[in-house]
Amino acid sequence: MNASPDLIALAQNTRQAALVLAQTAHEERNQALEIVAKGLTEAIPEILAANRTDCEEAEAEGISKPLYERLKLSESKLKATISGLDDLRRLPDPLGAVTLHRELDQGLILQRISCPLGVLGVIFEARPEALIQIVALALKSGNGAILKGGKEARRSCQILTAVIKNSLGATAVSPEVVQLLTTREEIRELLTLERELDLIIPRGSNEFVRYIQTHTQIPVLGHADGICHLYIDAEADPHKAVTIAVDAKTQYPAACNAIETLLIHREAAPALLPALAQALETKGVLLKGDEETQRLIACEAATEADWSAEYSDLILSIKVAESLEAALTHIQTYGSKHTEAIVTENPETARRFLNQVDAAGVYHNCSTRFADGFRYGFGAEVGISTQKMPPRGPVGLDGLVTYKYQLTGQGHIVADYGAGGKSFTHRDL
Amino acid sequence: MNASPDLIALAQNTRQAALVLAQTAHEERNQALEIVAKGLTEAIPEILAANRTDCEEAEAEGISKPLYERLKLSESKLKATISGLDDLRRLPDPLGAVTLHRELDQGLILQRISCPLGVLGVIFEARPEALIQIVALALKSGNGAILKGGKEARRSCQILTAVIKNSLGATAVSPEVVQLLTTREEIRELLTLERELDLIIPRGSNEFVRYIQTHTQIPVLGHADGICHLYIDAEADPHKAVTIAVDAKTQYPAACNAIETLLIHREAAPALLPALAQALETKGVLLKGDEETQRLIACEAATEADWSAEYSDLILSIKVAESLEAALTHIQTYGSKHTEAIVTENPETARRFLNQVDAAGVYHNCSTRFADGFRYGFGAEVGISTQKMPPRGPVGLDGLVTYKYQLTGQGHIVADYGAGGKSFTHRDL
Repeated sequence: MNASPDLIALAQNTRQAALVLAQTAHEERNQALEIVAKGLTEAIPEILAANRTDCEEAEAEGISKPLYERLKLSESKLKATISGLDDLRRLPDPLGAVTLHRELDQGLILQRISCPLGVLGVIFEARPEALIQIVALALKSGNGAILKGGKEARRSCQILTAVIKNSLGATAVSPEVVQLLTTREEIRELLTLERELDLIIPRGSNEFVRYIQTHTQIPVLGHADGICHLYIDAEADPHKAVTIAVDAKTQYPAACNAIETLLIHREAAPALLPALAQALETKGVLLKGDEETQRLIACEAATEADWSAEYSDLILSIKVAESLEAALTHIQTYGSKHTEAIVTENPETARRFLNQVDAAGVYHNCSTRFADGFRYGFGAEVGISTQKMPPRGPVGLDGLVTYKYQLTGQGHIVADYGAGGKSFTHRDL
Repeated sequence: MNASPDLIALAQNTRQAALVLAQTAHEERNQALEIVAKGLTEAIPEILAANRTDCEEAEAEGISKPLYERLKLSESKLKATISGLDDLRRLPDPLGAVTLHRELDQGLILQRISCPLGVLGVIFEARPEALIQIVALALKSGNGAILKGGKEARRSCQILTAVIKNSLGATAVSPEVVQLLTTREEIRELLTLERELDLIIPRGSNEFVRYIQTHTQIPVLGHADGICHLYIDAEADPHKAVTIAVDAKTQYPAACNAIETLLIHREAAPALLPALAQALETKGVLLKGDEETQRLIACEAATEADWSAEYSDLILSIKVAESLEAALTHIQTYGSKHTEAIVTENPETARRFLNQVDAAGVYHNCSTRFADGFRYGFGAEVGISTQKMPPRGPVGLDGLVTYKYQLTGQGHIVADYGAGGKSFTHRDL
């Protein structure tokens, strides 16, 4: 399928506006953020009213409880999101950073300089506050953003976009850098805009992200699965093991960085599993165990399918591991390269786990729930990437910029180098 | 289609070997490079003999001249490639670099550390020396490599791989990190190995790269097109303009960083075009011009299709631009974001060109032919990327590593933070 001429024209307008945005000074982009935050703050009553109407309609249509929770904007959630824009302003300029400065030869100078990606296509379900965060990150990093929110959040997205565009009208940044699409059909069209979009950011369910990933040639930032493990070593501190397990599973079970499987060393299991089970069950967690686990605590039987399941709920599978190697192999086989944690007091065991596990986040004696752009100090995040290629892990401003090589000479040509000719100096400046 | 069990097993073996390689010390990887270089040097007569047989067979089968040139290994080309391994050894370790070191809270320390991608799938036509370069880059960066050379280079690839694997036998690096596939069918199977491969590197024609890009969900490093422009400004130095144009077009016209279109400012055209045409025609370049160009010099008419053509040959299209803006618009419309150059003595014009052109390389007063990993001082390159997402431009070791976030705590949990709880310190160390 091809995109409609209207959509192509809209995307091209966005790119032109983004090219101008890319040339703005840091203060101009920060000022735009400040004015957008002010505009949003003034419009809080209208935004909440629009969101209430979205919520009522969604409820009448029988929306699921978790989706409803994500759709609903409380005043405190909205205010916290708006105040995130102040944090973002305090972060350094992601543009114009010189990451390589090298003399190739006398008078021939190479610089690698960070610059915006261009235009982002952002497709998200529910969560209206994600719109604010992503637009703010796009503005700070000099990118245009074409947004498509879920049908259920239609009114919320419309008023948020209107307020943002209105606010930008009083700044050096053109309101044209932010666009909102309104029909579902446009998602499929958007995915064909290889020349007009530089990155697609999907925010939603695993199935939704996987659909996007397999239906476009545009780079996609994100992750489909979050199957995270907590491995409790033979030399784990029992108190840390229990509190970290409870936090990683129950503090927000629907999050991608919550654990799905607990691995526990055979030597630690008899003494620790009963305490773990009690603490988790107190929090309402349903436990499923392998055979050895079932001998030590009362729980359901885990099947092969459990090791690959992302419950996103108060369910935890448990497996006894005979060694660190067995735990590493299990993680390599079933993990989704998101975040993996070990609890141990043995620094050498910790070192081996941190070195050998291949995941965006590898943690020692702390909860997997720390895997998050805010907690890492990135100001905000556009998502968490489990891809191998960077950007990996929580992605903030750094993931929305690329770089270009600027080479300045004085008439230098390649024919002068090589056998018998001039040599490169390759001297870092 | 699905990959055969044999190929999956081979890929999994490569990953296991690569995981061990990832844990080796820099000196061990460098020693492996040294021993491989020694092995290749000793085997030069056998390698050249195998390549001669490949060339004879290819010639008998009527191989095209450019492909024959790329297939043929001269002793000097082979020696230069082997000595490139010494340059590579002198580069710093790409692994274990700490690119972020931050206290999130007391006792909760975040580090971002560079690590290998894992296993590379390398598919290339002709050019046997590319095998040596890419294997060397893979070894230095701790990655496994599954190679598939062109049918025409079968014997060359076989002996090179045998010598490399043999040499690795005497080192800390397992010979299993390098694998050579031999049948054409395996390319399509390789493209399905999403779990087993982390990056596909195709080296070959535009059509070949585009086929790979559109037939796999694995990230692909590379570029399909190289449509580079040279813009000669009204304030260009005539001597620089002519020598750079000749170098950028004729020094190696089949290279992706050679120019395809010359843009010249209307004010410079009458005085400069005749001299440019003479210098280029002396080198055998066929010129095609827009109407205004045709009024100034004798040349063929350029059609709309010429502005999108990658000739890879001694052909150059020429267009008169009424302004810098017109040149920028032409480049934005027809360029492939590879390398774009301006010749001007006006620093402000140069600054605007370097800032506003969106390409992996933006050059001032030098030839586009400098876009190359060796010339940038990267030791070698696996290819040049025209994608927006990093790695962009000539890709050396930096493009073969990713990073992971290591977080170490003392029992830290997320539930302790937020409203009324602890705060993050976010202090860079």
